[in-house]
Amino acid sequence: MKTLSLSRRLRRTHVSDGVEAASIKTYSIYNRMLLPTRFISLEEDCRHLKEAVQVWDVASQRQVEIKGADAADLMQRLTPRDLHDMKVGRCYYVPVVDERGGMLNDPVALKLSENRFWLSLADSDLLLWVKGIVLGMGLKVDVFEPNVSPLSIQGPKAEELLSRIFGEAVRELTFFGFDYFPFADGRLLIARSGWSKQGGFEIYVEGNDYGMPLWNALFEAGSELDVRAGGPNLIERIESGLLSYGNDMTLENTPFECGLNRFCHPDRVISCIGREALLREMETGPKRKICPVEIEGDLPASDRAWSIRIGGNLVGQVTSAAKSPDFETNVAIAMLDRGFWEAGRELSVETPTGILPARVVDKFWN
Amino acid sequence: MKTLSLSRRLRRTHVSDGVEAASIKTYSIYNRMLLPTRFISLEEDCRHLKEAVQVWDVASQRQVEIKGADAADLMQRLTPRDLHDMKVGRCYYVPVVDERGGMLNDPVALKLSENRFWLSLADSDLLLWVKGIVLGMGLKVDVFEPNVSPLSIQGPKAEELLSRIFGEAVRELTFFGFDYFPFADGRLLIARSGWSKQGGFEIYVEGNDYGMPLWNALFEAGSELDVRAGGPNLIERIESGLLSYGNDMTLENTPFECGLNRFCHPDRVISCIGREALLREMETGPKRKICPVEIEGDLPASDRAWSIRIGGNLVGQVTSAAKSPDFETNVAIAMLDRGFWEAGRELSVETPTGILPARVVDKFWN
Repeated sequence: MKTLSLSRRLRRTHVSDGVEAASIKTYSIYNRMLLPTRFISLEEDCRHLKEAVQVWDVASQRQVEIKGADAADLMQRLTPRDLHDMKVGRCYYVPVVDERGGMLNDPVALKLSENRFWLSLADSDLLLWVKGIVLGMGLKVDVFEPNVSPLSIQGPKAEELLSRIFGEAVRELTFFGFDYFPFADGRLLIARSGWSKQGGFEIYVEGNDYGMPLWNALFEAGSELDVRAGGPNLIERIESGLLSYGNDMTLENTPFECGLNRFCHPDRVISCIGREALLREMETGPKRKICPVEIEGDLPASDRAWSIRIGGNLVGQVTSAAKSPDFETNVAIAMLDRGFWEAGRELSVETPTGILPARVVDKFWN
Repeated sequence: MKTLSLSRRLRRTHVSDGVEAASIKTYSIYNRMLLPTRFISLEEDCRHLKEAVQVWDVASQRQVEIKGADAADLMQRLTPRDLHDMKVGRCYYVPVVDERGGMLNDPVALKLSENRFWLSLADSDLLLWVKGIVLGMGLKVDVFEPNVSPLSIQGPKAEELLSRIFGEAVRELTFFGFDYFPFADGRLLIARSGWSKQGGFEIYVEGNDYGMPLWNALFEAGSELDVRAGGPNLIERIESGLLSYGNDMTLENTPFECGLNRFCHPDRVISCIGREALLREMETGPKRKICPVEIEGDLPASDRAWSIRIGGNLVGQVTSAAKSPDFETNVAIAMLDRGFWEAGRELSVETPTGILPARVVDKFWN
C-alpha cells in the first residue's frame, strides 16, 4: 500500500465528491485522472458486483473526438478493424496500432454521426497520436478532447436501476448499442457496455452540470437494489479475460499477440496504419500470445510483470493476477511465447516473494 | 491522503527497490510510472534539499529518442525555440506546441550527436505526437522510447557527492552541459541540470544494470554529506518558479502565457508547428499569464485549480500552492487574465475550504 500525493495534474472528476463521500479506499491513475479501484476490498467489491449493481467513476476513460469531412477516412486509417459497415448509434472495439503494428490504445469507438466519432480511451494519450497524424497528413478533421466523462453502471441489476431513471426504453438497448435519454434539462448518451461481464451501461456525461445530480439520482433510485460505488475490479476482469492496456499489452504487442484477431483485418483494410507489419504477422502467426493461466500458492500484489519459465528458460510473463474466491484459484493473464501456450502447460512463475507453480488453462473463467 | 493501487501499468523504476528501502511515504504517477514525492514531510524534505544533497528517482522523466537523417529538421519543427546553433553536449529547454500553439510538453532536449537527440519529458505521451508527425509527414527518423532512466542528484552538496564517485572532472560541467563519465564496466551520461534551484545533476542511466549499483554508490559516498532519498519538492519548486506541465500549464496554454518568451521565436523559426498562431499572439500579447502569488491563511492541499476573483469576477486560477516555512507565506503559481497580473494586485482565492486573500508578487522567491 502506497500513498498518492494529489495535484491538479492528476485530475479530479465530475463525481469525485461523490466518490469521496462513498469512502473510496484506493485510486489508480488513468489518463492522468483519478480512477477509483476499491471501496471495501477487492473480494467484497467483486462479490457485490456479481450480485447487485455498482456505479463506477470512469471519467478517466477520456474521449478523443474526431469530426469533419475526413473523419471516417481517418478512423479507418487508425485501426486495422474493418469499419466499412460502421453504423451510427453503435460502439466498436478498435485496436489502434502504429506503423509496426504495435498497440497504441484499445478504445471503444462510438459513431455519433457520419462525420463524427468518439474514441473512449484506455490509458495512453492517443489524442496526441491522432493529432500528429492529422497534422502530418493534412487531413480535414478537428481532433480534440471533449468535456465528456463516462459513468459506468455495472452488475446484474444495472438494467433495473437505469430503467427507474430513464424508463423502460433503456432495456431495449442491445450490447454495444447507444442512444440518447432525457435527464434534467438535457440528455445523456447511454451505451450498453462496460468493463465487466456482469452486464451494464456506460453513460457519457457531457459538460459539468450533470455529474453529481446523476450520481445522486442513481443512489436514490438504487437504494433498495443495494447500489454501491465501485470501480473496475481486478478479480472480475481477469476472470472475464478483459485485457488492460498498459498491464496485459503495450506498444511492444500486436493485436494478434493480444488474441484480437476478430478485430484485425489488414487483408481487407487497405488504408490502415501498420498494414504491412500485420499482414506479415498474419502469414507467420504471432510469436507470443495472451493466455489465461492459473497459479498456485500465495500471490503478492500484481504490481509488475512476473517472469515465466519452463525448465529454466524464459517463455513469457504474467501481467495481471489475483486470487479468485469464486473459482478457488489464482486467476492470471500471461503473455506466452509460441510453443508454450497450449492448455495444460505447466509453468513456473517468478514472483517477488517466490516461485509458484502455474498452468495454462483453456479459457477465461467468466 | 489517498492510497494508490499498484499495477504493472503504473511502472516501477530501476531503483524502486532503493526508494522503498528508504521508506518512501508518497508517490505521484508521472508518465505512468512511480515518482517519489515525499519521504519525511514536504517541509523537512525541502529544508534538507536546501542544505545537503538528495537522490531523486526521476526515471518517470521518460525519453523520446529521435535519430536519423531528418532528426535535426524534425526537432526544429517540434519547437518554436530557435535551435539553429544547438550544440552536441548541451541541454535545451524546448516548449513543444501543437498547431494552435498549445503546450504539449516542455521537455529538456539533449543533442547527443548531429543526428541524434533525446527529449526528457514532462508528463504527457509526447512520443505519440512525434511518431504521428513523423508518419504523417514521411520523415526519415526513428522515434522510440529508449531504456533510459534519469536519476537526479540535487542540493548544494551534489557536486561534492558526484566528484567522489566520478572524479573532479564532474565539477567542470557547466549548467545544462553534459558529458559521459565511467561507471562500473560502462559509462553514464551526466548533465548539470535538475528540477530544483539548489544546484545539481541528472544522470541518464541506460539499460537495466546500473540503477541499484549507482543508487548504492551514491548513498555510500554521501553518508557523511547527509545524503537522503528525495523527490521534486512542491515547496521548493514553487518558490523557484519551476512550472509543472499538467499543473501550471496544459494544452490550453501557449508558451507566451507560460512566460516562456525567451524559448519561443516563431518570428525566426520558419518550420515550427504552431508558427502562425504564435505569431498572432506575439502581436496581440498573451490573454493571460503565469504569475507568482502569495496567499494568506490556512491552505488545503493543492489538488485542483482554485478560482481567483476580483470583485466577484473570475480573473484566473491558482494551479499550485504550498506553505513555505522559509518565506513565511503561502507561495503559489497562478494563471491570471490580462489586466489583472501586475504586482500588488489584491485577489480572492476560492479554495475548497474557504476564500483566502492573496496578492500578485513581483517575482518568484528563490
